[in-house]
Amino acid sequence: MERTLVKETATKIGEKVRLEGWVSTRRDHGKLVFIDLKDRTGIVQVIGDQKLSELRAQDVVEIIGLVQKRPEKLINPNLATGTVEIQAEELKVLEKAAELPFDMGGKDLKLELPTMLDYRSLTLRHPKIQAVLKVQETIIDSFRQSLKSQDFTEFQASALVPVATEGGAQIFPVEYYDTKVYLGQSPQLYKQIMVGVFERVFTVGKAYRAEPSVTTRHLSEYITLDAEMGFIDSFHDIMDVVEKVIREIFSDLNKSNSAQLALYGVTTPVLSAKIPRIKMREAQEIIFKRTGRDNRQEPDLEPEDEREICRWSKEEHGSELVFITHYPMSKRPFYTYADPEDPEYSMSFDLLGRGLEWATGGRRLNDYQQYLEAINKKGNSPKDFEIYLQAFKYGMPPEGGFALGAERITMQVLGLENVREASLFPRDMERVDIRLTKPQNEPK
Amino acid sequence: MERTLVKETATKIGEKVRLEGWVSTRRDHGKLVFIDLKDRTGIVQVIGDQKLSELRAQDVVEIIGLVQKRPEKLINPNLATGTVEIQAEELKVLEKAAELPFDMGGKDLKLELPTMLDYRSLTLRHPKIQAVLKVQETIIDSFRQSLKSQDFTEFQASALVPVATEGGAQIFPVEYYDTKVYLGQSPQLYKQIMVGVFERVFTVGKAYRAEPSVTTRHLSEYITLDAEMGFIDSFHDIMDVVEKVIREIFSDLNKSNSAQLALYGVTTPVLSAKIPRIKMREAQEIIFKRTGRDNRQEPDLEPEDEREICRWSKEEHGSELVFITHYPMSKRPFYTYADPEDPEYSMSFDLLGRGLEWATGGRRLNDYQQYLEAINKKGNSPKDFEIYLQAFKYGMPPEGGFALGAERITMQVLGLENVREASLFPRDMERVDIRLTKPQNEPK
Repeated sequence: MERTLVKETATKIGEKVRLEGWVSTRRDHGKLVFIDLKDRTGIVQVIGDQKLSELRAQDVVEIIGLVQKRPEKLINPNLATGTVEIQAEELKVLEKAAELPFDMGGKDLKLELPTMLDYRSLTLRHPKIQAVLKVQETIIDSFRQSLKSQDFTEFQASALVPVATEGGAQIFPVEYYDTKVYLGQSPQLYKQIMVGVFERVFTVGKAYRAEPSVTTRHLSEYITLDAEMGFIDSFHDIMDVVEKVIREIFSDLNKSNSAQLALYGVTTPVLSAKIPRIKMREAQEIIFKRTGRDNRQEPDLEPEDEREICRWSKEEHGSELVFITHYPMSKRPFYTYADPEDPEYSMSFDLLGRGLEWATGGRRLNDYQQYLEAINKKGNSPKDFEIYLQAFKYGMPPEGGFALGAERITMQVLGLENVREASLFPRDMERVDIRLTKPQNEPK
Repeated sequence: MERTLVKETATKIGEKVRLEGWVSTRRDHGKLVFIDLKDRTGIVQVIGDQKLSELRAQDVVEIIGLVQKRPEKLINPNLATGTVEIQAEELKVLEKAAELPFDMGGKDLKLELPTMLDYRSLTLRHPKIQAVLKVQETIIDSFRQSLKSQDFTEFQASALVPVATEGGAQIFPVEYYDTKVYLGQSPQLYKQIMVGVFERVFTVGKAYRAEPSVTTRHLSEYITLDAEMGFIDSFHDIMDVVEKVIREIFSDLNKSNSAQLALYGVTTPVLSAKIPRIKMREAQEIIFKRTGRDNRQEPDLEPEDEREICRWSKEEHGSELVFITHYPMSKRPFYTYADPEDPEYSMSFDLLGRGLEWATGGRRLNDYQQYLEAINKKGNSPKDFEIYLQAFKYGMPPEGGFALGAERITMQVLGLENVREASLFPRDMERVDIRLTKPQNEPK
C-alpha cells in the first residue's frame, strides 16, 4: 500500500491510507487515544484505541487507517488537515524513541539556551526551531534568486586561505600537511578576483572568526552571503542591489513563510520607498540632537548608536532599515576606496536593521599600483597577495560589493535574542556540537 | 549616457552606444584596428583607427560608438553579435592591464597545469575556463532545484567537527581557541541528524580530505552535494532519487550550457531508460568474462575495473552510467546497513560514469542500539558521537542518502584530464592558491 503524505489526507475523506511519521503528542481520553502524527508535510490527528496509548513523543510509526471528516464543531482552523482525522486500524512502531528529557509538546520550547544546544538534534524537531531553519532557507535562496535575476554568476569560494591577511589574531590556523593555512574570514579576495572573470558574482559560504569573547551577536563560523560587481558608476549602485535583494527576501518570506513568521508573531521590517542613506557623521549628529549623547568624534557607531539611528529611521522615514555611509578610512580594510572629495572617509556602507548590522559593503580599489601601496601601508607583503594582485594587474574595472550575514538576518527578522538560535549547530569558543570546556560565562 | 551590454548591440543597429568591458584580442589591418570587446554578456567586434592600436588584451575600456550592420559576407555565425560591429568614436581606458605572460587569444589555453594555476586569476578569464565554472554552476543549481522539487529542505552544514570520527589520518586539525577541532570529511552525520527534523534534506558544502598523495582525481577541499531521506522502503528509493537528479542535471546542462559543452566538443552522457544496477560481485564476474582479469575475490573495484564496467554498461545497456551495489560491509563506514539476506554485503551503491565514481550512497542504520554496537565495534567511543546519537535515540525512520562530488561530475561531463581543472582554486598537498612547498611530483 502506497504511503500517503499527511497533507494529502484532507482530500482523501472516506479512503483508507497508510501514513508514516513521528508521534508529536499523545492525549488519552478514557478509552480513546488521540495522537498528532507529523511528517515532512504537516500534522494530522489520529484516533485509536488503547494500543495507541503505548506510544510516546518521537516514536516513528506507520499507521493504516480511515480518513474521516471531522464534525463541524471539531474542525481545527489552525491546521491544514484540521477538517479530517484518521481512525487508526493498524499500528506498526518502526522505531521506538527513548523518553524525552523535557516536554516538546508545547507551542514554545521553554529551555535555557545551553540545554537547547546540548540536545540540539532533538530540539531542532520542535516546530519553532524548524521555523527558524525554514526562514533561513528562504533568506539564502532569495539572495541567490535575486542576484541570478540581476545577471550574477554563482561561484564556490574556498574556505582555506594561504596567509592570515586580515588581522591575524582572530583567525583559525589549520594544520595542513606539513605547513599551516587558515580558515578564511570572508571570501572577499576571491569574489573580487571573480569580478575579473564574470563581472557580477556571488557566493554562499562559511566564514570564520576567532571571536575572543562570547556575545549574543557573534559566531565563530557563520554563513556569509557575498556579492561583488564590476563597472559601477558609484557605490550607490551597490546599495541599489542590496536594497533589491533585501526587498525580494522580504517578499519571498511573506510568500513562503507566513506560517513561520506567525509562530514568532513578527512581520518583516517595514521599508519606505527608498531605504535612507546617511553619512556616519550625519548619524552621529542626529543621535546627539535626539539624545544628547555626543559621539561625534568617534570613528565608528557604538551598538547603542546603531539602535538609536534605527529608531530615528523608523520614526522619521518609516524604514526599519537604514544605510550608514562614509565610515572613516582608518576603520576599514586596505581594499576600501576613499571618497575623492573627502579622502579621510570611505565609499563604504553598513546596512542596519532593527538595531543591528545586516550587511556591509562598499566600493574597492581597482588599480594595481594603489593596491601595492595600500598593502605596503598596512605593513603586509604583496608577495602574500600574489593570486589576488594578479586580478588587478591584468585589468579590473571599478568595482564593489557587499556581504550579508544569514544568521544575523534570520535573528533580526524573527526577533531572536541570540544569534546562536539562528544557527543550526552554532560554533563558538565554548562549543562545537558538544561543550569544549567548562563554560566560563554562559552566552547572555 | 547609459551603458549598453554587448549582447544588446545586435538589436541596436544605427544607434550610438556606450560599451564597457575588457579587450579580448586586437588585430591591426593597416589603418584599421579591430578589437574584440568582452563583457559579462558576450563579445562584440569594434573597429577604430590608430588610437585603438595602443590597447592590449585585458585592458578595461569604455567605448562610445555606432552600431553598424555587417556586410552579409562578414557575418560571423558563431557569435551572438556576429551580425553587427561597433564603429568606435570615443575610447576611454578605465584600467590598463600589464602585458600578459602568455597569449590568451587562442581558442584553447595551451599551458601546463602548474602554470595555469600559478596564474589562476588571469587564466580563469579564458572562455574555456569560464565554461568549466558555468557548467559547474548549473550542476550545483540543478542538484538543488531537482531536490527541492522532490520535497527536500536545504540546510547549511558546519565544516567544523569536534572529533576525528571517520579515519583520523586523513583529517585536517584546526587550532580552535585553546583546543583542537577538525575539518569535516563530509556532512554525513549532520544530514542524518536532519532527517529527524525535515525527513528529506540536502546541503551543498565543502568537505576536506588530507589526501596523502597527488592524483588526478582527488582534491584536499571539494564541493560535496549531499542528500538524505527518511521513510525509505529500500535503498532502491535512494538510487531512484539519484537517477532523477542526474537526469535533471543533464537536461539543464543541455538547456543552459550547450555553448560550453560545444567548446569542449562533448555531450552529456548517454543514458538508457533506466540506469543499470548490478552487484559488485556480478560486476567482477562480468569483468572476468570480458577481460580474463580475475578480481572476483577483491573487496572493491580497482580503477581499471571501474572503467571496464562502464564500457560494459555502455555497450550492453546503452548507458554511460551504472550503479554498482552491495559492496562488502568491511569496506564501508560504521553507519552502513547490511543486506539482511547476505549480511557480509551492504545496501550501498556507487554511481560510476565514464570510468569514475560520481556518487556514493546507501541505506544507513537507524536504530540506536545498533549504532552503539557499530561504533564500539570500530573501536570508537559513543561519547564522541553524542549529538549524532541523540538523533537515533529519539526516533529515526529507515533512511539513507547519497553524495555527489561537484568537481568529479564537472570533470567527467567535460572530459577534463585532471580534477584540478574543475576546481576554481584547487587545494592539494602542494598548493593553496600559491605553491606551498617545492612540488615533489607534479600532478599527472
